[in-house]
Amino acid sequence: MSRTLTAELPALVGKRVLIEGWMHTMRSFPDFSFLVIRDRSGQAQVILEEGPELQRLRGLQNESVLRIEGDVVAEERSPIGVDVRNPSITVLAPVTEVGPFELNKKVLKPSLDVFLNHAPYGLRHPSKVATFRVMSTLLSAYREFLVGQDFTEISTPKIVGAATEGGANVFAVEYFDRHAYLAQSPQLYKQIMVGVFERVFEVGHAFRAEEHYTSRHLNEYCSLDLEMGFIRSQQDVMDVLAGVISAMVDAIHERNPREVEMLKIELPLGHSFPEITFRAGQQLILDRYGENRFHEPDLSPQDERRLGEWAKEEHGSDFLFVTHYPTVKRPFYAYPDPDDPEHSETFDLIFRGVELVTGGRRINDYEQLVASMEARGVDPQPFGGFLEAFRYGMPPEGGFAVGSERFLARLMNADNIRETTLFPRDVGRLTP
Amino acid sequence: MSRTLTAELPALVGKRVLIEGWMHTMRSFPDFSFLVIRDRSGQAQVILEEGPELQRLRGLQNESVLRIEGDVVAEERSPIGVDVRNPSITVLAPVTEVGPFELNKKVLKPSLDVFLNHAPYGLRHPSKVATFRVMSTLLSAYREFLVGQDFTEISTPKIVGAATEGGANVFAVEYFDRHAYLAQSPQLYKQIMVGVFERVFEVGHAFRAEEHYTSRHLNEYCSLDLEMGFIRSQQDVMDVLAGVISAMVDAIHERNPREVEMLKIELPLGHSFPEITFRAGQQLILDRYGENRFHEPDLSPQDERRLGEWAKEEHGSDFLFVTHYPTVKRPFYAYPDPDDPEHSETFDLIFRGVELVTGGRRINDYEQLVASMEARGVDPQPFGGFLEAFRYGMPPEGGFAVGSERFLARLMNADNIRETTLFPRDVGRLTP
Repeated sequence: MSRTLTAELPALVGKRVLIEGWMHTMRSFPDFSFLVIRDRSGQAQVILEEGPELQRLRGLQNESVLRIEGDVVAEERSPIGVDVRNPSITVLAPVTEVGPFELNKKVLKPSLDVFLNHAPYGLRHPSKVATFRVMSTLLSAYREFLVGQDFTEISTPKIVGAATEGGANVFAVEYFDRHAYLAQSPQLYKQIMVGVFERVFEVGHAFRAEEHYTSRHLNEYCSLDLEMGFIRSQQDVMDVLAGVISAMVDAIHERNPREVEMLKIELPLGHSFPEITFRAGQQLILDRYGENRFHEPDLSPQDERRLGEWAKEEHGSDFLFVTHYPTVKRPFYAYPDPDDPEHSETFDLIFRGVELVTGGRRINDYEQLVASMEARGVDPQPFGGFLEAFRYGMPPEGGFAVGSERFLARLMNADNIRETTLFPRDVGRLTP
Repeated sequence: MSRTLTAELPALVGKRVLIEGWMHTMRSFPDFSFLVIRDRSGQAQVILEEGPELQRLRGLQNESVLRIEGDVVAEERSPIGVDVRNPSITVLAPVTEVGPFELNKKVLKPSLDVFLNHAPYGLRHPSKVATFRVMSTLLSAYREFLVGQDFTEISTPKIVGAATEGGANVFAVEYFDRHAYLAQSPQLYKQIMVGVFERVFEVGHAFRAEEHYTSRHLNEYCSLDLEMGFIRSQQDVMDVLAGVISAMVDAIHERNPREVEMLKIELPLGHSFPEITFRAGQQLILDRYGENRFHEPDLSPQDERRLGEWAKEEHGSDFLFVTHYPTVKRPFYAYPDPDDPEHSETFDLIFRGVELVTGGRRINDYEQLVASMEARGVDPQPFGGFLEAFRYGMPPEGGFAVGSERFLARLMNADNIRETTLFPRDVGRLTP
């Protein structure tokens, strides 16, 4: 007999079926026992009378893996409208130890740290299954939208010979007899690839050796990168970003209604993407909060929260583009506004008061790029490959990067980015 | 005026258009000049008469980036059936140096090493653009097929606290004040995740510190991983593998006809997936080639070539599953055949005489897994997280891993895997 998923049972009343899954709960009453079996599609109740089948389960703990043949019977008190009765049970994998915490309660009880220590067990909780199923939709939808817009997927190396942006905060790798580094981003490679495909994206891991312990940073994360050529201004990049973010939100709405409901996700469906310049944003903070921030070359987390509040009140949107950041705070490849070179054609996308995306137009002229590096004290020598792409003709171009874990965390209103990362890496955590 | 791609020009005869791209070739004749402009969709010819527009191009080299407004005129001698005439030209990015080799000849001339040194430039050659466009199809098709089979995509850490399979050949990372490693594969994480989603896949980078200089190994590659639970035997895993490989081949056939033609790719469309056991394969080598290989615990590259020839002659297939390898040559998690524990429920998929995929059923019983580790001298202690997933109920499961670069190399009959890798990493190469 071939396997039936529990979600298929309601359509099979009167049939004998074979289901497989984990023992999620087991409760004994005077006359019968009540077993909930969990598989990838959901859960089903199995009714066991006193007898040899029940004997078979004696001493087994939750999470034991079972194969059950039984009859599908309509039962209106069951959450899915059917029960499985007259079961014949095979134990596929017995569990004899009680787990570190309970997986069959609606809310996970352990602290985040205890949970993460036992992630291989804890990720089975239905709320975590739902979380990472939404993540997989988010990744698919990102790629599907961009393939539809004629972008080509690329896969670029994570072991690199020079620190991506000439900065600190890079992990060193012992590469045979040499020193190498882990890529902080695919930034330079995706820019190179604009010369090949014009429009490229990559979904890959990025590594930051930053010694922070915040609720919104990871030392390894899955970055959604994009770069595109033949733009007129950064507006073209912002338009693609707004399009892909909306497509991801729509895909979650369409493909994960059960997960959205379970996790109580408030999706920003149909939201607009208002824009404000960095300087106008500082003016707004002065006007609304009486705080003078004009001396600051960047936005603080509080500034971002305040601007996010304004976007919500004024435009009814969870999103806000802040544009034209001070050039000095952006990397060497950021494109200074020709009319106001102190500010750059760069943007952040703020989502619910937190920076979600950084992007902008890049310098595409070779001489200007080398001059920008030198002005910042970045030695062009290790960037020979990168610069070659510009020496031989690079169109006006720009791009952005979205942290997938951060996006999902903000979507879910999770307190900590570690809640939306399968196996997070931070200063204190290398396992599991 | 908004941009038109060169591939759209044949439908626009009589219209004035704006095209943008790279100067691919420029030839001067007594009365006129002849410019080929290249964009992501293809190429178009632009006819320039003597005059100020031609003056504007004086001193510019190939790969200069141009914006051209012009009239689309039918011209039967043009490869796409139209020319662009009466152009008005803007130089978006001038190139003044001659490139390291020519991009406008049908075949790339430089040696592989020279090519790789100048990959940021050389990847623009139409044959390389075609190669990596096929790669992007291959990646999409892999994911699409598996999502359709109810697999969930996962993203697991590449910085790990213990070497994946307890072996050598692992890159060390300086992780703050500790030692960490780069994951040799997502093996242990994807097995853990079977407990969460039953069926998972990952497309991600894997790192091997193997000091080899062969034409078929890389030190960093993009691995297509899969793992699935509730299998009856490894046959279930082999069936999914055959399905996804066929889906990838079909997708390339359907989505990349131009690239397939340019690269002269012979796609194994509709091929079957014959099977032979390891021992029967050795018998076959004895029978066909008179060579006794029974003392060998593994197949040599020559053995694989010979078995591949047999599959082609006997089954008309480029593929061959070799199953039931000696247990001793497989990792600790390989599942020994209960009827013949010297051999394991493992397989390799040979494609055109080269091993393309390794996979099999895994040990899912906790006690058996720990015993297998200990029997091989693998200390279970650093594998605590992995083992936790088995202590708390793991169904019978198995999986496989495909190297994307190797698959594309064999599909294209490329001599060297570096030809199907954007920026390869090997013992001698860390840049570009």
